[in-house]
Amino acid sequence: MPSLVSIEQLDRVAVERLLRRAQSFLDYQLEGKENVGKESVGVKGTAVNLFFEPSTRTALSFQLAAQRLGLKVLDFVVENSSATKGESLIDSLQTIDALGVDLAVIRHPENWPKLLDGEKFDLSLVNAGSGIHEHPTQALLDALTIRQHHGGFSDLKVAIVGDIYHSRVARSNALLLRRLGAEVSFSGPEAFRKGDVAEHRWIDFEEAVVESDVVMMLRIQHERHQHIFDTTNYNQHFGLNMSRLQQMKKNAIILHPGPVNRGVELTDDVMRDPRCKLLQQVTNGVAVRMAVLEWCLQGGSNEQLVSA
Amino acid sequence: MPSLVSIEQLDRVAVERLLRRAQSFLDYQLEGKENVGKESVGVKGTAVNLFFEPSTRTALSFQLAAQRLGLKVLDFVVENSSATKGESLIDSLQTIDALGVDLAVIRHPENWPKLLDGEKFDLSLVNAGSGIHEHPTQALLDALTIRQHHGGFSDLKVAIVGDIYHSRVARSNALLLRRLGAEVSFSGPEAFRKGDVAEHRWIDFEEAVVESDVVMMLRIQHERHQHIFDTTNYNQHFGLNMSRLQQMKKNAIILHPGPVNRGVELTDDVMRDPRCKLLQQVTNGVAVRMAVLEWCLQGGSNEQLVSA
Amino acid sequence: MPSLVSIEQLDRVAVERLLRRAQSFLDYQLEGKENVGKESVGVKGTAVNLFFEPSTRTALSFQLAAQRLGLKVLDFVVENSSATKGESLIDSLQTIDALGVDLAVIRHPENWPKLLDGEKFDLSLVNAGSGIHEHPTQALLDALTIRQHHGGFSDLKVAIVGDIYHSRVARSNALLLRRLGAEVSFSGPEAFRKGDVAEHRWIDFEEAVVESDVVMMLRIQHERHQHIFDTTNYNQHFGLNMSRLQQMKKNAIILHPGPVNRGVELTDDVMRDPRCKLLQQVTNGVAVRMAVLEWCLQGGSNEQLVSA
Repeated sequence: MPSLVSIEQLDRVAVERLLRRAQSFLDYQLEGKENVGKESVGVKGTAVNLFFEPSTRTALSFQLAAQRLGLKVLDFVVENSSATKGESLIDSLQTIDALGVDLAVIRHPENWPKLLDGEKFDLSLVNAGSGIHEHPTQALLDALTIRQHHGGFSDLKVAIVGDIYHSRVARSNALLLRRLGAEVSFSGPEAFRKGDVAEHRWIDFEEAVVESDVVMMLRIQHERHQHIFDTTNYNQHFGLNMSRLQQMKKNAIILHPGPVNRGVELTDDVMRDPRCKLLQQVTNGVAVRMAVLEWCLQGGSNEQLVSA
Repeated sequence: MPSLVSIEQLDRVAVERLLRRAQSFLDYQLEGKENVGKESVGVKGTAVNLFFEPSTRTALSFQLAAQRLGLKVLDFVVENSSATKGESLIDSLQTIDALGVDLAVIRHPENWPKLLDGEKFDLSLVNAGSGIHEHPTQALLDALTIRQHHGGFSDLKVAIVGDIYHSRVARSNALLLRRLGAEVSFSGPEAFRKGDVAEHRWIDFEEAVVESDVVMMLRIQHERHQHIFDTTNYNQHFGLNMSRLQQMKKNAIILHPGPVNRGVELTDDVMRDPRCKLLQQVTNGVAVRMAVLEWCLQGGSNEQLVSA
Repeated sequence: MPSLVSIEQLDRVAVERLLRRAQSFLDYQLEGKENVGKESVGVKGTAVNLFFEPSTRTALSFQLAAQRLGLKVLDFVVENSSATKGESLIDSLQTIDALGVDLAVIRHPENWPKLLDGEKFDLSLVNAGSGIHEHPTQALLDALTIRQHHGGFSDLKVAIVGDIYHSRVARSNALLLRRLGAEVSFSGPEAFRKGDVAEHRWIDFEEAVVESDVVMMLRIQHERHQHIFDTTNYNQHFGLNMSRLQQMKKNAIILHPGPVNRGVELTDDVMRDPRCKLLQQVTNGVAVRMAVLEWCLQGGSNEQLVSA
């Protein structure tokens, strides 16, 4: 069955269809038809959360999405936490496949699709985070949040700010939002401007604040750093606070994948500002994951092989 | 939606209605109609267990209660165990609310309703333990167990014995059982007679054993003590054993919120005595939680704001 | 309700019926009738996984089996990991029983049925591993895998190889496969030929490889060893590799309860050989557990008391 492992798989038409479907789930819910999935969608099966990195929020979001579609999601707790290499992942997936599970939601500290090499599985694979490389459902939910507010993506200025180098959220969003027509820039500390991300367009943070229609603040990924990154003065130099908020466009929005390091990326009062769309992102996450799970289990109309 | 955070919210009429409803769930089950909830109750939705303190028994009791009502309960594992302050709780609840969850069952080492301050949520909150302060569903299940045996509460002598100071069970039960007409006394080691609980009525343990209609033994809460409390001779001075059992009224009953420190609060042979209602308490717990969840999700007929 | 705690409980007729039922679940699934249980089986209820030893694979297999039958399986996480003695197990089971649960799947580092002594419970107990003693559903799924390939058990030569002494898989399989008519031999390092298993028939590993119709390789149970067992040259002396594979009968099959210590019991290329039936064992495990759960909840036609 089809898998969603990378934004690269999705052309503009496929993205538009997923976003429309996600929006329709939200609209149904607003009308009070809570369990819409069960009635109007034909998918069924069992999914497993296979998380080699802990994440309550994403795991719960996928569980709720599955549940609303009438599916089951079970957790496959990874027994040996040091077992994060490819062999362990392949063994786990072969076992889950043989158990008769239809779909695995995978989060892994490495670029796991590469670890799978030429292995074939009957089940669908959905990428819930692959090292610093990709997090496609996060990019889709961010795109949905942007479209709800701005109506589209053409000529939209998006600044992604912060710990760019360690961020799969930044990479997946840059891929997706450029494909949709937005002008995407990176910004933040020089320490995070290296490797592949150094080649992208970078702008000064002050410029990002003043000119952007979307300011996407990234979580400092302490768990991926080799050296301790001091955040004492971070907010002053690269975070949002009330004085920066006043420099932003009236119609701009603030995104953050959560959980926020409060007082670092965003101050408490910024989080209470109506331009701050963090909770809308959470709500949209469930709807986007419903659309992705449904797309995989229905066989995917623009099916593409998992490219490693 | 309405929340149940404190016994203070419930007047006598509300308590009676919850107990009657819980009893009706038990009666249906005895008639073999296992999944009664699904057919006869109109509630639906998703609940989340948000436990900042571990508790398999209470979490499972809420899961089974929800399941019998036809609801789902998912676990929200708290990622950072040091994150037990208000900010973390508020962030978690806002996320859960935005995920579209209808009800959160919360256990927290502090008086969490106070931490929420003036925050507003769409979801219902059910208190499954707030520090040393309250544990309303435990008090309700204890009240149900007492009513099943004694038929009512008027003029009933109830002694709550043991680690009173650290016990939210003692505080919620004292509030509830006095409201229902019982005469509640505390008893136990002097070390636990301090702070707010010192103001209540205290009696000698020997008197408690001989004169009470209900002897509620509390678990020694080692996890809340700053100094090690030696329980070597505890049973001899403040626990129940066969010789004390013989001094009790014939019609008295023994309660304990579980899990028992065997040989400390109760000896093994006391636990096998028919006056010991511990397993009936467990059974009643599921029924009481069904009634509480249903009450919250139905909108609550004597809705009261969460008072911090 | 009836329990399955030991292979000793099952006579040949009972085994044949369970295997036939498991095979019928597999056949239905192949025909695409995924949720066959719900429609064609009359069982209902709630099960709990009570695992005092961690095991994602077995826990998930039971969860999926229950789910396909239309049952629920909740996890009862054992709070105090040092609490593995009988008293804790009895308290946990009494609580689960009082909660109204219908069946408990139990895995425990000791021979837990012995710990239960003369205790009576309303719920069914299913043994998912009792110390080094028994693992009946593993033996049943191995028997099903053998029957699928060889058509029966009479005169079949089965060699069980490796860490025999610490293996409940070896003991349950020896009991079951002899009862079904197979000739079962043990083989492997002298260090594991002691105690009760020393009395069984043992053969040289070279003979086992050449003459067996079924070669069942056991996982080295490092977690049960008092001294570190060096596996550096294990594969050379007691493991399967391509050169040993060539000495095996053309029609022989290789089994392993998993997870494999790759390069120790089996090399990677052996795992890719079609005679290696590890994934078929995983698939069969779900079907066998469906048959066992159904048998327990239907009341068991050859009901036998739990013999300690």
